[in-house]
Amino acid sequence: MKDLQNSLAHRFGEDVAAPPEELGDVAGLLRMALRKSDRRYHDTPVSLELLKLLSAVALTAPTKSDLQQRDIVIVKDRDVRARLEACIPGQAWIPKAPELLVFCANNRRQRQIHEWRGRPFVNDHLDALFNCAVDAGIAMQAFITAAETVGLSCCPISAIRNDSAAVSDILGLPDHVFAVAGLGCGWPEGNKPISLRLPLAVTVHVDRFSEAGVQAQVDAYDQRRHDVQPMMSQRAPDEFGEADPYTWSEDKARQYAKPERQSFGAFAKAKGFRLE
Amino acid sequence: MKDLQNSLAHRFGEDVAAPPEELGDVAGLLRMALRKSDRRYHDTPVSLELLKLLSAVALTAPTKSDLQQRDIVIVKDRDVRARLEACIPGQAWIPKAPELLVFCANNRRQRQIHEWRGRPFVNDHLDALFNCAVDAGIAMQAFITAAETVGLSCCPISAIRNDSAAVSDILGLPDHVFAVAGLGCGWPEGNKPISLRLPLAVTVHVDRFSEAGVQAQVDAYDQRRHDVQPMMSQRAPDEFGEADPYTWSEDKARQYAKPERQSFGAFAKAKGFRLE
Repeated sequence: MKDLQNSLAHRFGEDVAAPPEELGDVAGLLRMALRKSDRRYHDTPVSLELLKLLSAVALTAPTKSDLQQRDIVIVKDRDVRARLEACIPGQAWIPKAPELLVFCANNRRQRQIHEWRGRPFVNDHLDALFNCAVDAGIAMQAFITAAETVGLSCCPISAIRNDSAAVSDILGLPDHVFAVAGLGCGWPEGNKPISLRLPLAVTVHVDRFSEAGVQAQVDAYDQRRHDVQPMMSQRAPDEFGEADPYTWSEDKARQYAKPERQSFGAFAKAKGFRLE
Repeated sequence: MKDLQNSLAHRFGEDVAAPPEELGDVAGLLRMALRKSDRRYHDTPVSLELLKLLSAVALTAPTKSDLQQRDIVIVKDRDVRARLEACIPGQAWIPKAPELLVFCANNRRQRQIHEWRGRPFVNDHLDALFNCAVDAGIAMQAFITAAETVGLSCCPISAIRNDSAAVSDILGLPDHVFAVAGLGCGWPEGNKPISLRLPLAVTVHVDRFSEAGVQAQVDAYDQRRHDVQPMMSQRAPDEFGEADPYTWSEDKARQYAKPERQSFGAFAKAKGFRLE
């Protein structure tokens, strides 16, 4: 119980009330509270059988209106894997990850069902893209928790959308199906620290959204994070200079001061989605 | 171990290999495998402290590029709650749910950080909406698992986006912040069965997307689900007739033969997002 409180206090920089004693064992909560995205793994592969079991557990997660608009691609073939990695250059950890999965949004099955049942699909607008994308994210998070439950580590890869068209070709994704995120996975090596998070005062609201004091809170978070986990390298110092301290918010502002996935909308349209 | 396999075989209609024995205790996996979205609760409220604790655990989940673009609104005020419920008519279970949370996408903080740090935000395109929406889904799923770990039941509410503008006003959501999903939550009453899922042969792919036999698989799923959990009421029988059997796919084809959230794209644009 004390471990749970301590880990959350460390993560968020503020105290969180203890769970009521009648809840009993909170080992499951503690495991989640201690989670971390981890990019360092032992070489040992994870069996296809275990990946399928974890996928099954992941797919018990809820889906929008029970539509089940998400699929998982488990990548075991070395050639397919190498071609995918070529779409995500500059991340040295990915080729070293024993396993790679791709969580896909699938709005195609729903449209097929309309054809098979002779009913018109009259919701060809932004919501169609939105629902299957969020469903894929939900399934990925359930997979991560399931994997971490058995001692595996994971790290999501949003950069798999940097060249969505190429990834789509490699995986043979038809219209209305697309990769939302990749996921590296393996047995962890070493003991990576957990990432500190923005304080709950900023991200958890009661009854009404509030951003009172948000700038001061982000500044304090920057400082706390810098004290505990200073960032090891600066982004684009030639362009933006050397910051001291180099903080989380400075890093994020530099990241999105460079174009990322500007063609994703065009790709989504080419996959048959309307974005209106 | 056998319980885990049995529950997954029941859920997906096919066998899943047992986890390797060296994994030891798989109680956490079994709890996830047995999960269900549940809309029937005891009247007992859940304390704000416990909801905050579960929110903290949920916000340990990964976020796109560590950007933390998701927030949680815990709705405790009866007036706010009643106004939100008025935006989601026709779902009798929602007013009876002891607790309601709203998982929000928040791309605003990122844009604020750019202002504060003097860096241009050059990614004002579809990706900005996409990333924060998926992050909100990820956080909701982590909340659900955390809540179920302590014995609570939950049910997501995508219909909170049916009237996104009104929900936004009620919760005071500024530009670039919007509700992705609501979540009803409480201590479960009764023993709802788990929902059967499409077979893994349809939703889990190895190396390459495949839809070989998908129509026959959906037909078989319809039949299996009808045998185990027949649907209790038919959607729009005046328009579509009485189907016998009334199956999952028929129900879903009828649902999306009616317009839903057609104004969501316009709402997203009004909130400041570009959908290109």
